[in-house]
Amino acid sequence: MRSTADIRRANAFDVVRALHGTADASRREIAQATGLSNATITNICNLLLTAGVVTESRREKAATGRPTTRLTLNPTHGRFLGVDIAETYVHVETLNLALDCLSSTDLEIDYHRRRPRQIVERVTEAIQREAEANRSLPLLGVGVSAPGQVDQVGGTSVFAPNWGWRNVPLLDLLTKALDAPMRLDNPLKSLVLAQLWTQPLRATQDFVVVNLGTGVGLGAAIDGHVLRGRTNSAGEWGHTVIVADGRQCRCGSRGCIEAYVGASGIMQTLREVAPNSPVLHADDQTLTMRALAQALERGDPAALATAERTAHFLGIGLASVINMLNPEVVVLAGWVTQLLGERLLDMARPHIARHALAVSMMAASFEIEHPRNNSVSVGAAATALEAYLEAVMATDESASAKDPSNTPAPSNALSG
Amino acid sequence: MRSTADIRRANAFDVVRALHGTADASRREIAQATGLSNATITNICNLLLTAGVVTESRREKAATGRPTTRLTLNPTHGRFLGVDIAETYVHVETLNLALDCLSSTDLEIDYHRRRPRQIVERVTEAIQREAEANRSLPLLGVGVSAPGQVDQVGGTSVFAPNWGWRNVPLLDLLTKALDAPMRLDNPLKSLVLAQLWTQPLRATQDFVVVNLGTGVGLGAAIDGHVLRGRTNSAGEWGHTVIVADGRQCRCGSRGCIEAYVGASGIMQTLREVAPNSPVLHADDQTLTMRALAQALERGDPAALATAERTAHFLGIGLASVINMLNPEVVVLAGWVTQLLGERLLDMARPHIARHALAVSMMAASFEIEHPRNNSVSVGAAATALEAYLEAVMATDESASAKDPSNTPAPSNALSG
Repeated sequence: MRSTADIRRANAFDVVRALHGTADASRREIAQATGLSNATITNICNLLLTAGVVTESRREKAATGRPTTRLTLNPTHGRFLGVDIAETYVHVETLNLALDCLSSTDLEIDYHRRRPRQIVERVTEAIQREAEANRSLPLLGVGVSAPGQVDQVGGTSVFAPNWGWRNVPLLDLLTKALDAPMRLDNPLKSLVLAQLWTQPLRATQDFVVVNLGTGVGLGAAIDGHVLRGRTNSAGEWGHTVIVADGRQCRCGSRGCIEAYVGASGIMQTLREVAPNSPVLHADDQTLTMRALAQALERGDPAALATAERTAHFLGIGLASVINMLNPEVVVLAGWVTQLLGERLLDMARPHIARHALAVSMMAASFEIEHPRNNSVSVGAAATALEAYLEAVMATDESASAKDPSNTPAPSNALSG
Repeated sequence: MRSTADIRRANAFDVVRALHGTADASRREIAQATGLSNATITNICNLLLTAGVVTESRREKAATGRPTTRLTLNPTHGRFLGVDIAETYVHVETLNLALDCLSSTDLEIDYHRRRPRQIVERVTEAIQREAEANRSLPLLGVGVSAPGQVDQVGGTSVFAPNWGWRNVPLLDLLTKALDAPMRLDNPLKSLVLAQLWTQPLRATQDFVVVNLGTGVGLGAAIDGHVLRGRTNSAGEWGHTVIVADGRQCRCGSRGCIEAYVGASGIMQTLREVAPNSPVLHADDQTLTMRALAQALERGDPAALATAERTAHFLGIGLASVINMLNPEVVVLAGWVTQLLGERLLDMARPHIARHALAVSMMAASFEIEHPRNNSVSVGAAATALEAYLEAVMATDESASAKDPSNTPAPSNALSG
């Protein structure tokens, strides 16, 4: 259902995203980038100017007629916190309206202290520490990413398998420590939002972000919207069965993609290939993956065989995504990708091509994410930014019934 | 990108869909059903009344104030043809604006005469025969569904594996015979459109239609929109690999869902279970599936073992859909579903539950489609209806810049 408020919010998102892609822009350029009418652009820009979200950066003399005003996101309007709660650490970033990172805080999370109260205590410490920085900027909102399945509406961690959490009212617990608007999402959806908000081209595309790490999952954007499904649980690609009755997966099922291309799945393959390989570091996934990357560099046969088997399963899994969603771009992300991604993708390509339908395969391109900063935090901050923009647009609900083209416009309204 | 025209079209679709769900409705009821503002409803209804798409069905006396006018889709405004080109037949239906079937034509397609020119000749014959009926109604458009992958924009059959077609300009060939606006789509997307247009509740849901037949595939609606992907090829669930390096699939890959739950996959399983089973009818899929359904009724052990193995693979496949898309409803359709669906679904349920994530599994319900008429034709006609409504809305593009609430409204504008 598209209520008037929904449309206005979506249009405002488009305008602000267009400004994210550039230092500054005229209203005419924003209209071209978004496809929205001049009247709508004028109306939204006026609201954003009044709220202070946007400022005039400079006026350009035009060859004829009135000068053109260029608009930019206001870097001093306020800040957002993007909170990435991972299984072994919490990373909190302060970002401005343009989603530039101003500062960050990292704290490790002790796996033995993973009860909700213990994690919340640690996360609260990181949030409060970061909230103390950049105090000159008003805090406009906090976006939190938590692993596993989350209920956005209730602010609840529905299921976090690695911690054994079920139905933890995470936002209720966190807001006790900090009185600011908070939003909850999961890391995969946050990665998609980071792409949508920081890479304006993405907003017009169908794309997927595939995460390869301890867990394996996927976030997807369909026509510029995050794929969420009925209960915000869409994208559980890691638990697609690719080997019926295959390896036991930690989710309880068997033969899932994660059991073959997640870090512990890769370790299991290495153990099968070479049980005594010096690359194996007992149960330490990080050390093993690092050693595996180095062993691949020097052409270690067991490492190559492991990578080849992993690439086979990864290729099958990526082909399923391409067949199912027919995306334009597949972005590989996650810590295993950072270590092994380039090589795995090269090895997986023939397997993808063998299992994907030709039309869809030809339409898809592949990228390795090279994050400049923590993309999950950026995406989490983007949910907070979305909530803030919704509130800004809602302040003008009464005006929404009026026609934007009849609204008295400032003198520069349509000159940009 | 949401241009003003996009929004107006989507709103018009919502209004017409709301009228599809009921004999007639007041403007107020339409506003409630769609979430659109009274001003928007008034504007769209006026356009639809002027175009003749909608008529006033009756006026109800109100307790106070002016009488309420009730609106209905105009059954005599015109007709659409919905063309279902399948691999063994072509079915053409005439439908009115309410997508009620008025008449239909069926012609068999000879598998030995499957070259584009031969098929086009047969389809043209069916279309022309049907176009001769109901001549009192103006022909407003033709929607065509063709198997395999189709390019909507170019009107091309990109790849029809069963016929060995590649890049056949199908609409160009068909429009030579009949001068009417034509649209092309594939059967799975048509099934989704049929649900969206004839079951108004669906328009607010994420749902999938899973087709079990000779081929196996899926159509999905995400938030009321057909999932298409970059090149209209999304939904190729049948070629998700569930057994790495498993059975050869006709798509060229191995271990695809279709190789286990498509009709010929089920036959292969039966051959493995009981090579001499009397249920097997050489290469005749239809006879074998009918015999299998009867054998299951009488508790034939080979039939039961075959169904149990098929249900295992179907369960794994449906779990992947549920994990990936997190739909609210999964509708099983297709000719194999009509014969075996109830029983296969019952047997598959524990396998689905074992392989799907609990949150997503709990959110999903399952239905067997019981088509009253050919749903693919209804969906194909719905694409033609969409094209027609787009054209109606475009006639008023100049008015779109004006504020609907300022548009002079007829006396009954907001009384409904």
